[in-house]
Amino acid sequence: MQLLKDRILRDGKVFPGNVLKVDSFLNHQMDVSLFCEIGKEFHRRFAEDEVTKILTIESSGIGIACLAAMYFGVPVVFAKKNKTKNIAGDVFTSRVESFTHGRIYDIIVSKEFLHKEDKVLLIDDFLANGSALLGLASLVKDAGATLVGAGIVIEKGFQTGGSLVRGTGLRVESLATVASMEDGTVQFS
Amino acid sequence: MQLLKDRILRDGKVFPGNVLKVDSFLNHQMDVSLFCEIGKEFHRRFAEDEVTKILTIESSGIGIACLAAMYFGVPVVFAKKNKTKNIAGDVFTSRVESFTHGRIYDIIVSKEFLHKEDKVLLIDDFLANGSALLGLASLVKDAGATLVGAGIVIEKGFQTGGSLVRGTGLRVESLATVASMEDGTVQFS
Repeated sequence: MQLLKDRILRDGKVFPGNVLKVDSFLNHQMDVSLFCEIGKEFHRRFAEDEVTKILTIESSGIGIACLAAMYFGVPVVFAKKNKTKNIAGDVFTSRVESFTHGRIYDIIVSKEFLHKEDKVLLIDDFLANGSALLGLASLVKDAGATLVGAGIVIEKGFQTGGSLVRGTGLRVESLATVASMEDGTVQFS
Repeated sequence: MQLLKDRILRDGKVFPGNVLKVDSFLNHQMDVSLFCEIGKEFHRRFAEDEVTKILTIESSGIGIACLAAMYFGVPVVFAKKNKTKNIAGDVFTSRVESFTHGRIYDIIVSKEFLHKEDKVLLIDDFLANGSALLGLASLVKDAGATLVGAGIVIEKGFQTGGSLVRGTGLRVESLATVASMEDGTVQFS
C-alpha cells in the first residue's frame, strides 16, 4: 500500500534494536484519515470472506480495527491483556510474548463474543515475532470459529513472525513489509 | 442520546459494586455503527470549538475517539498507561486511579503530540470517579494547550466524578447519565 509506505518513509523513525517508531501516525498519535484508507484496503483484500467479526488486541490495534470494521459492517472484539473486575465468567485465554514491551502476558476474550458461527479476521498494527497473532488465532480456534486471515499494517519481514504464522496455514495480508532497517533506512520487500 | 440509552437498557448488565457492564457493545465487543452515531453526536456538541486534537486513554476510549475523530477531521492521541521501549524522550505524565481496575497508575503522552496551539477535546467511555479525566486534563494543561471540554459516553451520575470535574470549570458532555442502578435497574437522569 503505497500511501502507507510513503508515510513510513516520511515519518517513521528507526531506533537501535530493530525498533521502528511510527507513533506520530499509527500507535500513539493516530491519523484517522490514514486509518480509513487502511480499513478500505483490508476490506478490499478480504471482501469475499464473509467476515462476521474483527478480533484485535489492546491497545494499538483497536483504532485500526474499528475503522476497518466500518467498511466490513461488523463488530470488533479486542483481547484484553489483564483480567479486570468487569470480566466475569468464562473466557478464552492464551499467552503472548510482546516484542515491544519485552514481557509475557495472558490475553483473554469473553466466551460471549466469539462463537463457532463466526468468521473472524484478525487485525493488528505490527507483525514481528508473531506471538500476538498466534495468541489471537488460538482464541479463535478455542471458540471453534472460522479464522479467515490476518490483516497487518506493518510486517517486519526480517523477523520470524511472518513465516511462523504463515506456516500454520493462516493467510496474512501485510500492507507494508519492511525488509531491512540497516543504517536507519527503511527498505520494503 | 436516546439510541445509546435504549442500548444500555437492552444490553447493559448491573453487577454488585455499582459496576455497569456494557462490554457487549462498548468496551470489549465494540459496535462500530453505534460508535459512528456517538462520534456524530460529540461532533454536533463541539462543532463550534475548533478542536484540533482528540485525547483519550487506553484502551476502551480508543475506538470511540477514533470514530469521533473521523467527524472532526483531526488526529487522536491516546495516553498510555505503561512506559514502553517505544516511548523515548520527553513525556507529559499524570497519575490516575482506576475505578474498574482498582489501582493507581501513571499515564503518559509524548510531548511531540500535544502543543500549546492545540485545542483538545477529551473523550472517554466512562466518567465515574473522574480520575482519568482529571489526569488527561492535567496533561493538556502541562502542554499549555487549550482544553475545549470532555465527551463522555456514560456518566455515573451517582458518583463524585461529574461534579468534581465540572467544578474545575471543564465542560463535560455526557451522552447518557446514569442516576441509579438500584435493584439492578438502570435509571437515567
